Amino acid sequence: MQYGYIGSMKTTPGHRDEVIAILLSGLDGLRRAGCSRYLVAAAADDDVTIWVSEVWRSKEAHDASLRLPETRAAIAAAMPMLTGEFTSQETTVVGGLGV
Amino acid sequence: MQYGYIGSMKTTPGHRDEVIAILLSGLDGLRRAGCSRYLVAAAADDDVTIWVSEVWRSKEAHDASLRLPETRAAIAAAMPMLTGEFTSQETTVVGGLGV
Repeated sequence: MQYGYIGSMKTTPGHRDEVIAILLSGLDGLRRAGCSRYLVAAAADDDVTIWVSEVWRSKEAHDASLRLPETRAAIAAAMPMLTGEFTSQETTVVGGLGV
Repeated sequence: MQYGYIGSMKTTPGHRDEVIAILLSGLDGLRRAGCSRYLVAAAADDDVTIWVSEVWRSKEAHDASLRLPETRAAIAAAMPMLTGEFTSQETTVVGGLGV
């Protein structure tokens, strides 16, 4: 089964759109790295939280992607605009619609 | 933009697979109701938690789907196997891969 990841991050005030843009800038690289679904969303109940929901062919592919130069560059660019408050949940994707 | 929903539920011990099967039994109805992505996943760090990540054309479509007979029947079938511990997060989906 595929590897799923659901996580959230909080941005410093006024920077959510900018961080979302960074997250959405590397989609081709993610696809090449083995990501089949990568959803970036803004929390509806505040203006600082970003949620991501990801599906990868394996945990190994996901973890390896974190070591890619473009991923490291994106994290470095976003980090100054993040508060350091993260949540993360690893899952095994069982199925669904468009998964 | 599309409406996103990320939520979790805890099942009573030994019932996760059964509840997941119920959640996955109504996919055609969800598509007709306006759902474009419906991911059902098992938490990797326990054997009782289920995560769902959904994308709908609107919050209204999502909320209306909860009043459909088949959705009510699925909830009624699953409820006895749930502990009542839920998390839910509404989002605005900005973009991503396969979204």
